[in-house]
Amino acid sequence: MLEELKQRVLEANQALVKHGLVILTWGNASGFDREQAMMVIKPSGLAASDLYASDMVVVDKMGKVAEGRLKPSADTSTHLELYKAFDGIAGITHTHSIYATMFAQANLPIPCLGTTHADTFFGDVPVTRLLEKKEVEREYERNTGKIIVELFAGKDPLTMPAALAAGHGPFTWGRSPGEALRNAVALEAVAELAWGTLLLKQDVKRLPEYLMEKHYERKHGSGATYGQNKK
Amino acid sequence: MLEELKQRVLEANQALVKHGLVILTWGNASGFDREQAMMVIKPSGLAASDLYASDMVVVDKMGKVAEGRLKPSADTSTHLELYKAFDGIAGITHTHSIYATMFAQANLPIPCLGTTHADTFFGDVPVTRLLEKKEVEREYERNTGKIIVELFAGKDPLTMPAALAAGHGPFTWGRSPGEALRNAVALEAVAELAWGTLLLKQDVKRLPEYLMEKHYERKHGSGATYGQNKK
Amino acid sequence: MLEELKQRVLEANQALVKHGLVILTWGNASGFDREQAMMVIKPSGLAASDLYASDMVVVDKMGKVAEGRLKPSADTSTHLELYKAFDGIAGITHTHSIYATMFAQANLPIPCLGTTHADTFFGDVPVTRLLEKKEVEREYERNTGKIIVELFAGKDPLTMPAALAAGHGPFTWGRSPGEALRNAVALEAVAELAWGTLLLKQDVKRLPEYLMEKHYERKHGSGATYGQNKK
Amino acid sequence: MLEELKQRVLEANQALVKHGLVILTWGNASGFDREQAMMVIKPSGLAASDLYASDMVVVDKMGKVAEGRLKPSADTSTHLELYKAFDGIAGITHTHSIYATMFAQANLPIPCLGTTHADTFFGDVPVTRLLEKKEVEREYERNTGKIIVELFAGKDPLTMPAALAAGHGPFTWGRSPGEALRNAVALEAVAELAWGTLLLKQDVKRLPEYLMEKHYERKHGSGATYGQNKK
Repeated sequence: MLEELKQRVLEANQALVKHGLVILTWGNASGFDREQAMMVIKPSGLAASDLYASDMVVVDKMGKVAEGRLKPSADTSTHLELYKAFDGIAGITHTHSIYATMFAQANLPIPCLGTTHADTFFGDVPVTRLLEKKEVEREYERNTGKIIVELFAGKDPLTMPAALAAGHGPFTWGRSPGEALRNAVALEAVAELAWGTLLLKQDVKRLPEYLMEKHYERKHGSGATYGQNKK
Repeated sequence: MLEELKQRVLEANQALVKHGLVILTWGNASGFDREQAMMVIKPSGLAASDLYASDMVVVDKMGKVAEGRLKPSADTSTHLELYKAFDGIAGITHTHSIYATMFAQANLPIPCLGTTHADTFFGDVPVTRLLEKKEVEREYERNTGKIIVELFAGKDPLTMPAALAAGHGPFTWGRSPGEALRNAVALEAVAELAWGTLLLKQDVKRLPEYLMEKHYERKHGSGATYGQNKK
Repeated sequence: MLEELKQRVLEANQALVKHGLVILTWGNASGFDREQAMMVIKPSGLAASDLYASDMVVVDKMGKVAEGRLKPSADTSTHLELYKAFDGIAGITHTHSIYATMFAQANLPIPCLGTTHADTFFGDVPVTRLLEKKEVEREYERNTGKIIVELFAGKDPLTMPAALAAGHGPFTWGRSPGEALRNAVALEAVAELAWGTLLLKQDVKRLPEYLMEKHYERKHGSGATYGQNKK
Repeated sequence: MLEELKQRVLEANQALVKHGLVILTWGNASGFDREQAMMVIKPSGLAASDLYASDMVVVDKMGKVAEGRLKPSADTSTHLELYKAFDGIAGITHTHSIYATMFAQANLPIPCLGTTHADTFFGDVPVTRLLEKKEVEREYERNTGKIIVELFAGKDPLTMPAALAAGHGPFTWGRSPGEALRNAVALEAVAELAWGTLLLKQDVKRLPEYLMEKHYERKHGSGATYGQNKK
């Protein structure tokens, strides 16, 4: 089942490695089929380069394996929480990519300091609160999803397709596994830029709102002028 | 038309990726034919590795497409402003390369701290002012070109073949698309060197003027001794 | 003798280079066969890419060569001290990998700032004291092993499979040469993350203990949920 | 003439690029034949990857071309000054490698902070004074060599096979072009380590003298234990 989605999820997992966002086996990508309410995700603890599409694991909304010989990613419940809360998304990545993880470890949002940032993320990339002891001891992975969802009350997750789990690392999402992957690449670049800019000038100012809006709208607004016309 | 120029523009776009200056599709290179007053530029939003010379877009001085099935780069008007103002140039690049963009985000020029810098750039690489709200809302891309041109009143753009758009990123140019590309590589190296030198020693002094002049002249002056004799 | 172990030791040495942890010939990996009480180690001063399994050197517990035409690594006595003191280990690496070595040079432990760290290392990665003059002049390499062992009095070296030799660089270990290698990769990533996080926020707090425990246990505890079931 | 030396000089130039020490054409390696008193050096302004051994240029002690169709490196006089002053050397490199150049631009020596440094360089890597105006205007390249030589009055250049030209970049040397190349690789690693260590801990202490001596002697002393026995 879901053979095409398995292929796309495999490719997103392999692209995470190719872009240098995943070291050893520290990361995963998934896709969600809204019609069948099924998620396809990388198996746990294995290197993406060794896997075939048929190794991808299909789980239902409760996290029960519907197809596949392998155990799904340890972060399966986090992904499911996000798909449940964010209607418009169909792909998710989680990595420990170096610069985004530095901000997560520092418990700091990634400030919007330039147009590179605004081209993908509308505002600062938020960081969650730290989980409390009892939230870690019981249903840790599900709760990781819940505190990300907390950040988006009343907001559109597609205008801010990323969040940092405090002390942990980044999650990104999108309308497809490929879009989630591209947002993971963008997030890491934007984090590196912000990190280096802050070291160069501690009191740097955020990009003016009107410039942030211009760049975001140019690429994602209803009258977007960037890219080729979709057929 | 302009088949040879299309090939060179394609190669410059692909070299930007190969040198690590372009992430995803964030960058473009163009070439200008002064006789026909036509610009050849990368199409918008596509990866250079997937393109052929025949995909390059030809536009006239007004930005109207003269040949090509694809939409030209969203930054087309910025390039045209620069070709219009800077007589001697025939190639331009725009990237979001990491270290040069850090200086753009910090709204700081790249100071001339060593001979590596002086070999290509005669003095600090300047940064534009921030565009005002009304300049962003209307003709944003053209105005981005205009505020770069503002920096060069009474100066020769070929002795300083680069500028940083504040909050945005670098533009470089040259007598050909290949020279603009080499200047983009040089700018990123020079930005990384300046960034790391400033972190090492906050109150570092600029290179003495006489040493800066020596290096610039050695490579670019009328009695240049660097390189092989041109046939 | 020990042909299979030689192959694994060769592969670990080559993987150190592939992961960018070894520059020129600055590093080595070894394996230990507890039944025969023999160590297999890289020969001294040669590039791993030029070597075959049959070039690996077999030495006994005293460091005497039991098989091999080449001289063993200059760090042979350090490795032997660790195998002698740490019962459960069968693989060791030593490198001068960039970020871990920065902490060693600064004489600072690598603080546990995130789950990436806690996934492999239970707590701060410790740094040894500096060797005294007389410990350097006589049996320097053996003493390097001894001051690492000092750090682990009453502790399980498998929950902290790494240490920094002050002013020198990292050592890692594991149940096999491959596990030691993966721990070397993890250590360098964790060191880079900590380095960049400290530059971003000097007074950053350590990961809460309950979150550190959760991550370590999830991967290494008796009820570990990470990875596939071992056959 | 000197066909074997040309091959070695070509290989050293290409290895500088392969190790990431040379960007575009910013660097060169040479070799010296003491019997014939002839230097073989890279031609000026060309990429090493495009060259053959027969493109290397042979110059005499005065810098006059003895063989070759191409112009020698612009830094030819600097190399010749070093060969003239330093009896025991037969290979030189000059690069603008990133981290070593940061120290040169900051006008700071590279402090000996660890054993990685002491394995190759006995003490801090020195930086020259800045050239005065008249030294730049006349015989600039020769004077660059002279101020490096100034640093080594009464010292053995083979125990410190590198120096930084202030505001410019590193030079390294050795008993052959290959040794000079390996010293260039070591210098860049040691510079990166020192840079990152200083950012992590501004008041870091130098490696104790007895540890520095131990490491240097272990690799280079009369009773060196590192590496294989030379036949």
